[in-house]
Amino acid sequence: MAGNTFGTLFAVTTFGESHGPAIGCVVDGCPPGLALAPEDFAHDLARRATGRTRHTSQRREADQVEILSGVYEGRTTGTPIALLIRNTDQRSRDYAAIAAQFRPAHADYTYWQKYGIRDPRGGGRSSARETTMRVAAGVIARKWLAERHGVRVRGWLSQLGEHRAAVPPAEVDFDAVEANPFFWPDPAQVPALEAYMDALRKSGDSVGAEVSVVAENVPPGWGEPVYGKLDAELAAALMSINAVKGVAIGDGFDAVAQRGTEHRDEFTADGFLSNHAGGILGGISSGQAVRARVAFKPTSSLRLPGRGLDVAGQAVEVVTTGRHDPCVGIRATPIVEAMTALVLMDQALRHRAQCGDVGPVSPRVPPGLG
Amino acid sequence: MAGNTFGTLFAVTTFGESHGPAIGCVVDGCPPGLALAPEDFAHDLARRATGRTRHTSQRREADQVEILSGVYEGRTTGTPIALLIRNTDQRSRDYAAIAAQFRPAHADYTYWQKYGIRDPRGGGRSSARETTMRVAAGVIARKWLAERHGVRVRGWLSQLGEHRAAVPPAEVDFDAVEANPFFWPDPAQVPALEAYMDALRKSGDSVGAEVSVVAENVPPGWGEPVYGKLDAELAAALMSINAVKGVAIGDGFDAVAQRGTEHRDEFTADGFLSNHAGGILGGISSGQAVRARVAFKPTSSLRLPGRGLDVAGQAVEVVTTGRHDPCVGIRATPIVEAMTALVLMDQALRHRAQCGDVGPVSPRVPPGLG
Amino acid sequence: MAGNTFGTLFAVTTFGESHGPAIGCVVDGCPPGLALAPEDFAHDLARRATGRTRHTSQRREADQVEILSGVYEGRTTGTPIALLIRNTDQRSRDYAAIAAQFRPAHADYTYWQKYGIRDPRGGGRSSARETTMRVAAGVIARKWLAERHGVRVRGWLSQLGEHRAAVPPAEVDFDAVEANPFFWPDPAQVPALEAYMDALRKSGDSVGAEVSVVAENVPPGWGEPVYGKLDAELAAALMSINAVKGVAIGDGFDAVAQRGTEHRDEFTADGFLSNHAGGILGGISSGQAVRARVAFKPTSSLRLPGRGLDVAGQAVEVVTTGRHDPCVGIRATPIVEAMTALVLMDQALRHRAQCGDVGPVSPRVPPGLG
Amino acid sequence: MAGNTFGTLFAVTTFGESHGPAIGCVVDGCPPGLALAPEDFAHDLARRATGRTRHTSQRREADQVEILSGVYEGRTTGTPIALLIRNTDQRSRDYAAIAAQFRPAHADYTYWQKYGIRDPRGGGRSSARETTMRVAAGVIARKWLAERHGVRVRGWLSQLGEHRAAVPPAEVDFDAVEANPFFWPDPAQVPALEAYMDALRKSGDSVGAEVSVVAENVPPGWGEPVYGKLDAELAAALMSINAVKGVAIGDGFDAVAQRGTEHRDEFTADGFLSNHAGGILGGISSGQAVRARVAFKPTSSLRLPGRGLDVAGQAVEVVTTGRHDPCVGIRATPIVEAMTALVLMDQALRHRAQCGDVGPVSPRVPPGLG
Repeated sequence: MAGNTFGTLFAVTTFGESHGPAIGCVVDGCPPGLALAPEDFAHDLARRATGRTRHTSQRREADQVEILSGVYEGRTTGTPIALLIRNTDQRSRDYAAIAAQFRPAHADYTYWQKYGIRDPRGGGRSSARETTMRVAAGVIARKWLAERHGVRVRGWLSQLGEHRAAVPPAEVDFDAVEANPFFWPDPAQVPALEAYMDALRKSGDSVGAEVSVVAENVPPGWGEPVYGKLDAELAAALMSINAVKGVAIGDGFDAVAQRGTEHRDEFTADGFLSNHAGGILGGISSGQAVRARVAFKPTSSLRLPGRGLDVAGQAVEVVTTGRHDPCVGIRATPIVEAMTALVLMDQALRHRAQCGDVGPVSPRVPPGLG
Repeated sequence: MAGNTFGTLFAVTTFGESHGPAIGCVVDGCPPGLALAPEDFAHDLARRATGRTRHTSQRREADQVEILSGVYEGRTTGTPIALLIRNTDQRSRDYAAIAAQFRPAHADYTYWQKYGIRDPRGGGRSSARETTMRVAAGVIARKWLAERHGVRVRGWLSQLGEHRAAVPPAEVDFDAVEANPFFWPDPAQVPALEAYMDALRKSGDSVGAEVSVVAENVPPGWGEPVYGKLDAELAAALMSINAVKGVAIGDGFDAVAQRGTEHRDEFTADGFLSNHAGGILGGISSGQAVRARVAFKPTSSLRLPGRGLDVAGQAVEVVTTGRHDPCVGIRATPIVEAMTALVLMDQALRHRAQCGDVGPVSPRVPPGLG
Repeated sequence: MAGNTFGTLFAVTTFGESHGPAIGCVVDGCPPGLALAPEDFAHDLARRATGRTRHTSQRREADQVEILSGVYEGRTTGTPIALLIRNTDQRSRDYAAIAAQFRPAHADYTYWQKYGIRDPRGGGRSSARETTMRVAAGVIARKWLAERHGVRVRGWLSQLGEHRAAVPPAEVDFDAVEANPFFWPDPAQVPALEAYMDALRKSGDSVGAEVSVVAENVPPGWGEPVYGKLDAELAAALMSINAVKGVAIGDGFDAVAQRGTEHRDEFTADGFLSNHAGGILGGISSGQAVRARVAFKPTSSLRLPGRGLDVAGQAVEVVTTGRHDPCVGIRATPIVEAMTALVLMDQALRHRAQCGDVGPVSPRVPPGLG
Repeated sequence: MAGNTFGTLFAVTTFGESHGPAIGCVVDGCPPGLALAPEDFAHDLARRATGRTRHTSQRREADQVEILSGVYEGRTTGTPIALLIRNTDQRSRDYAAIAAQFRPAHADYTYWQKYGIRDPRGGGRSSARETTMRVAAGVIARKWLAERHGVRVRGWLSQLGEHRAAVPPAEVDFDAVEANPFFWPDPAQVPALEAYMDALRKSGDSVGAEVSVVAENVPPGWGEPVYGKLDAELAAALMSINAVKGVAIGDGFDAVAQRGTEHRDEFTADGFLSNHAGGILGGISSGQAVRARVAFKPTSSLRLPGRGLDVAGQAVEVVTTGRHDPCVGIRATPIVEAMTALVLMDQALRHRAQCGDVGPVSPRVPPGLG
């Protein structure tokens, strides 16, 4: 309720500041009996981590997850699962100079306006460091969704600055996505992206990006009308990620200039003939693939000077040193996947609460085109 | 929790089906002492109503709000405010033919998949009729926000199909917006829109639209990191409106191709120098105008035949008769305003719960450019 | 959240003041497919109603429930069920004289302290009139619990002033309970109670009472440790009823002076050998009958003068005229049953959300002694 | 929502099993600016700890609280406060023998029925070990309540088995309470209690107890009608403590046999003349002292054999070895205080959310008799 819990039945509460002693989360509501071990978290955390390539922040996050509770002899017990990661490579000295300054376009200023106090070390609570725990909690959701329903959630970088991925969403090769540091679906474009990012990094500027995500095998019927709609909760989940400025379901803003005859996804006994809706109708999953896209802004932490204020309200020229990502979207794909999985997990539990485990009817229409 | 309540401290629970006996809502958590009368609802409900022009559905909604509770001698008492509107012009006969059919791209199908039962009359609960109560609840939020904080929430239609409004957001004349049936900010374009809609209606097709909204005088500090962010809750609120497929805060998807030096809103002692962020940093209001845009899809209820299914899973050709909007975005502006106001209201109460009435510090920086 | 909603997954929001136009509720989260008609409410509402005997308030509540939503062709659809009862026999004139006075020990004073405004007509929101909607919502819960799980929730008056029911809890004859106006389990004591109440009414005083409730056939496993325990939520539900001052689960305060060897309910392959725990262990149902008792205070609305204050803070002598119950416990049995059913319903849905429909194991131990 | 979070605006989520690696909690919603240091927790944790006297379990809990987040330079920042305590003196070997057995009247059995899996080490999640974090979170609430409102929450043991404290509630000397291992208000009775407990311990049996609590200086107006009543939430909070079977507000079950003229607390311009209501009217604080009592059952973990079952459903004779309290009520006073403080804290924030910081009117009536 107070802002740091996501979900209602699969409720994830995160805590921790970027340069505090630790970050962590409590996952409450996980069904009992799920196999879970510390090793399960390694893959997705590594995908999200900084310091793996020259294109992301050089902070080294060799994050080891400790499971503090909720697991007995390798299985979840139904009690809250607490996860803890100690912060190691903190370097608070990098940030000391800006403790009394507000960077332009940064949460520094609004946290201070809200609370009258802020932890300036590495962005404190507003740092993208927090998203580590989203990914960790997402691992649990993804395991359960896969084992129980065969649901698979995967994302990719569909735009990096002016560069748009040349692969249509339905044809993405996820092995290719994992084979480059950008989560980019078209290997042929990767060298150009490397050069683009190298030039950007040298310039000291940053750039935005778009991440796409698809959840396959989502059964029809998930989503709670009218305010707990699947797409509404996806929108909240994705917009809550640092630096996100836009969320699209299915065709998103492209639908504005479409005709109804073009947009409506017709269906036959063999399934849907298209997927403009992104797999959600009336806030409820249709059985098609659930598709969303997320817009990331260019980060405001730049070494190029910008006009800001200090705590006394005086104008200052702010230069951000320290280790920052020139494009936060590059390693956002695992975070987008995690938030999508958390939404689906919560809706899955809410659906079976109201409608039972099997559902009132079995789906009679094959899901058709993703 | 179960899907039909919006908000946590200013909690709005709506109920009712399109062609049931009534629609209504319960608003719980309204501060005591606010002047409130049935007449307060008339203006916004009329702005949302169908049947006012030839460009919207011809269902006549002459909605009279009855206040059932929570108001004594013209003032709110702090107890729940129940609002009721009886459905009058129902015409259930229009819909009887499609009770056994699922329209393509319509919630008919997903409600049936979820619940195994559905009310086919006029779309039942999935009808845009439900948004009437959002507007009604929004009236209360808007009154309190205006009286207590001077907040003003206003929207307009910024795109209709291929037609984009020629007026920059910061220069919108809201008198002009209210002077035409499209909530369009540029009077010079209105005749072209009239012709466009007349042709569309004759063709039997529908089209999408984009609605923009701005909330002025929002104090800095509203919004709860990290999952109850102001933008995250705005995204959920706006995405929960029927037919919405995309939400943008500030520059939205335009930020993808921007540089950080372009996007970051610098500020001086005189205020912010730009507003790419849409007035929200780190999920907390900055004191600038809060700006969002919403993409509406073209409706799928068309008299042009489409391929669908019947309840036996057999392919059918579906033709939707009855009274439908060729563009639901046209009268969505009051709904977008209402949802924005509900989010702000809830965040205002949550902010003063945690940080007190006055806030830990008074804002030291003028809000600057909206 | 804001105080007028009970439950999380089976969420009941009530509204309305005693002498306002109407009272009502919205039940959100009811599983689809449950048969429901206005007639279903008649029996329990009549049991709760005033005006049936000379021993309760003479306000005539011939309450007709209107189902405004959520039911189609006699079945719940999964969407919110709104129930409405118009207030008829209001007699606001009875209360006009005390609008400026605070009765001793009455919510008049605290509502005014909290909100700075109050609806003085018949106690406004603090009136026991509100409990009508608890009973109505409880009808839905009881139907589902009975049909889905065979759960039966029944109560009786176990103490009236100094008179204690002579029947042990496990031997209560519920036909006898329903055959007298006191919900008293021992017919032989009823004439004495009649005389007792007649004398009390003549004296102008009031008296307290204890209501007992038992829920049979509750499956093992319901209840959410550690804060959403079945007994914790029962305690909240029962304490939220007007005039309740104490709640006991199983032996309650009698357990204070017991030994562990006496209190612990041993069990064998044939079931439990006793039920001191009231069917709940560690906050989770054990499969035994769930048993609770509730203490009602004597009402403070008396025609015998009492020292109070007026809104100016001046001492006044307050005499309450109007129609009041000399013992609110007398017709509280249906309310206690309803709140018990609402708690069980919510826990049932929460249990199947986390643990699935069937549960991880079937109970291997017969429930044994209730 | 999923059971391990207490409170809505001051939300405490606890985690951890008795013999797992650690226990902890996340406190979300704490107002910013409160001074907080690890040393603040020492006093109350020591009061709750086992191993201090021969009358409680001999497990040594030398609990050191680590603050993982939410505090910067000794002040709360408004972000979530995570607290962690490593488990040290675990001795899992003590419990290995009963992993396949269900003790009579113990949560072992119901956890297994609910989840199909349980952590048998030391009672796992159902252990009273969890209450450590309630006390820790309560420390934060108590500090804020004291600094902001002067509220002071204190408890004592009012009954131990058959022994009733000879001191009236309003005359308790809290220095005396703290001066003996029982939290007993009458020093003259302590030697008898020592002998009583020594004999009980030798017998191998256990006994129940009653704890009383009083919150002084609670302002009028806290509590949310009609389901979030102050007394309803107190009842839930107190009933959620391990081994609690009954909760009384004010006179509690004594009110059953009272007359209205006796029970109603009259008031004059000088304040209330009595406090039968326990400081709560209509679910809202009246400005008087808030008073409650809690009944603890005798624990079921006894070395005297009892009839139970094993996981195969076969009857077994269960003997509980290990370290157990012969009366859990003895060290429950700090837990009861903590839960009371958590309820008041949450209600304080909720009150100022709806009604503002100062409240609509200042109290005009002195609180009078506690």
